Amino acid sequence: MRPPYAQRLVRLRALLRANGLDSCLTLHRPNILYLCGFSGSSGALLVEPRGARLFTDSRYTLQAADEVHNATVGIVQGPLLAAVGERLKRVGAPTVGYEASRLTVQQLQQVRRAAGHRVHWQPDRNPVEALRAVKDGGEIALMKRAASLGSRVFEQVLPLIKPGIREFELAAEIEYRMRLLGAIGPAFETIVAFGERSALPHARPTGRRLRKNELVVLDLGAILSHYCCDLTRTVYLGRAPARIRGWYQAVLEAQAAARLVLRAGVTAGQVDEAARSALRDHRLSPSGGKGLDKFFTHSTGHGLGLEVHEDPRLAAGQKQELQAGNVVTLEPGVYVPGVGGIRIEDDAVVTPGEAQILTTAQRGFLEL
Amino acid sequence: MRPPYAQRLVRLRALLRANGLDSCLTLHRPNILYLCGFSGSSGALLVEPRGARLFTDSRYTLQAADEVHNATVGIVQGPLLAAVGERLKRVGAPTVGYEASRLTVQQLQQVRRAAGHRVHWQPDRNPVEALRAVKDGGEIALMKRAASLGSRVFEQVLPLIKPGIREFELAAEIEYRMRLLGAIGPAFETIVAFGERSALPHARPTGRRLRKNELVVLDLGAILSHYCCDLTRTVYLGRAPARIRGWYQAVLEAQAAARLVLRAGVTAGQVDEAARSALRDHRLSPSGGKGLDKFFTHSTGHGLGLEVHEDPRLAAGQKQELQAGNVVTLEPGVYVPGVGGIRIEDDAVVTPGEAQILTTAQRGFLEL
Repeated sequence: MRPPYAQRLVRLRALLRANGLDSCLTLHRPNILYLCGFSGSSGALLVEPRGARLFTDSRYTLQAADEVHNATVGIVQGPLLAAVGERLKRVGAPTVGYEASRLTVQQLQQVRRAAGHRVHWQPDRNPVEALRAVKDGGEIALMKRAASLGSRVFEQVLPLIKPGIREFELAAEIEYRMRLLGAIGPAFETIVAFGERSALPHARPTGRRLRKNELVVLDLGAILSHYCCDLTRTVYLGRAPARIRGWYQAVLEAQAAARLVLRAGVTAGQVDEAARSALRDHRLSPSGGKGLDKFFTHSTGHGLGLEVHEDPRLAAGQKQELQAGNVVTLEPGVYVPGVGGIRIEDDAVVTPGEAQILTTAQRGFLEL
Repeated sequence: MRPPYAQRLVRLRALLRANGLDSCLTLHRPNILYLCGFSGSSGALLVEPRGARLFTDSRYTLQAADEVHNATVGIVQGPLLAAVGERLKRVGAPTVGYEASRLTVQQLQQVRRAAGHRVHWQPDRNPVEALRAVKDGGEIALMKRAASLGSRVFEQVLPLIKPGIREFELAAEIEYRMRLLGAIGPAFETIVAFGERSALPHARPTGRRLRKNELVVLDLGAILSHYCCDLTRTVYLGRAPARIRGWYQAVLEAQAAARLVLRAGVTAGQVDEAARSALRDHRLSPSGGKGLDKFFTHSTGHGLGLEVHEDPRLAAGQKQELQAGNVVTLEPGVYVPGVGGIRIEDDAVVTPGEAQILTTAQRGFLEL
């Protein structure tokens, strides 16, 4: 089923008009893919009041003919942005929005120079990202497939979690299985962290070998049909001490608390706070100590889609209201420096009611 | 052995002074890594007349303490660029260079606003990239290791090239082996193209299965200790027809011709022309047809280092003089639409004399 490109363009034009813009220019690959289907690495999409134009070069002639819908393709010799500027000059577009957070200073200069002084340029408010944050049924179906692929990969590598395996070996096994299941590749650098290294939320896999009685954090994402999944599981090799089990239980509860709050109409900050406050009810050790919220050092989640980090961000104090169709990660964690960390992450679709969880890997504490 | 960060900063400052700049700002990860050793994903490096400052956030406190040399680390709460701007305001730096081809419009705006109107901003000429283009002995040693890793991967997957394997399966096997040999990952999306798909220089692996009597193009790159390799081999499954053997021989000769010309003092364009003119001496088929140079649709090579595409570019007409220490790919190819393509790519160090080839995989025509 083809994505509703025409509908997306209609919505985008409404956002542009509301901001006093006639046209807009995007160079950002996921935005171009979203609006017209082109997945090549070099392209510029100009959305005009009537019609849209994709500018690319001759390396992509066949690919553009195959992929692009609802846009005219222009194969450009020489700099793409000069061609975009000349088009704007010719049609006399008065006010054009550009993505100030994506275009480089040089790119804006190039297109501006070619367009001439009669075109007025205005930074836009990333309207394409605003549209992308609300997924339609077709997108959710694709994300469900990506999430179930990620979940299968996790289950496939469980038997490999044995004493002696190295972090990077396990990362290699994970990415290998993703690809065999049809993913184009990982959505981000796979995280595999053993023992005390699990206390680093962004640990890069090293040559460290797994030993008995250690925590194992696996954070993996795959790209399938252009959509990302993002899944974290924490397991224990051996029988875990009571303290670790307590942490796991606390993180599980924090995630459940966030999931229960997550729905259309609540703010992103409320979801974050739900996870944080559940952790606050747990102590570092059965005998006391600080609340576990003190060891939750990042935000509760982020939007997910064509990119692995998108809007909305589920962070403390975020006032943004969630909408049905947002897809977000829920990934509370507890990180105790020098000891270890636990993170549990799933992907969830916001609805008017209960959140729909896309990831299917089991969430209970596994002692291997 | 630690890279000579101090020396690099001295050289950079000389380039800055020559361009009338006091300081420069870089946000580009490979540039930051090159100048001070920091490999985190979020950082801003300000090189000042005396000293350098890395700005990053609290996620990277430990990593920065571990990795950074010859720069003061500032852990910033809030936007990095606001902190950079405030620093510039405080020290009263008059003229600061920025990378117009890297900084977004928004980033320049942020730092500019925080720095106040007394700081004069000037787009610089990518001086860090100019330094990076000339590798020192330590870098070449690392690149040799990366290139030999890539070569081993090629040799390891040769036995898998059998009828029925799919393109993406072979790509998965390649990337899996890279990682097991210690690479952090592929330097780019691995290309595996069978049969008529080998005629697409940038083919993405698909589910297509290999059949007897087909060409196989493998283009792979690995990142090891931050440095990239880039290697292409073309093999044939079965006994190749005379025409295909002729093409292979022509591409091999074109590469040898480029290698013989490659040395300090020649221009990038001369190396490109050597490959192109060797292909011109061959015809599409033993009985005649167009010169094979007509089927060589891209440039002969590109610089390689911390990034997979760097300066210098070995393209037609390029006047840039090559210097000892440049590391470039040599990758002529012949692409016959609908039939197939052949590319042979190795990594070479420019010296005052004969080029030093880093990739060790055998180059002769393999009929499997």
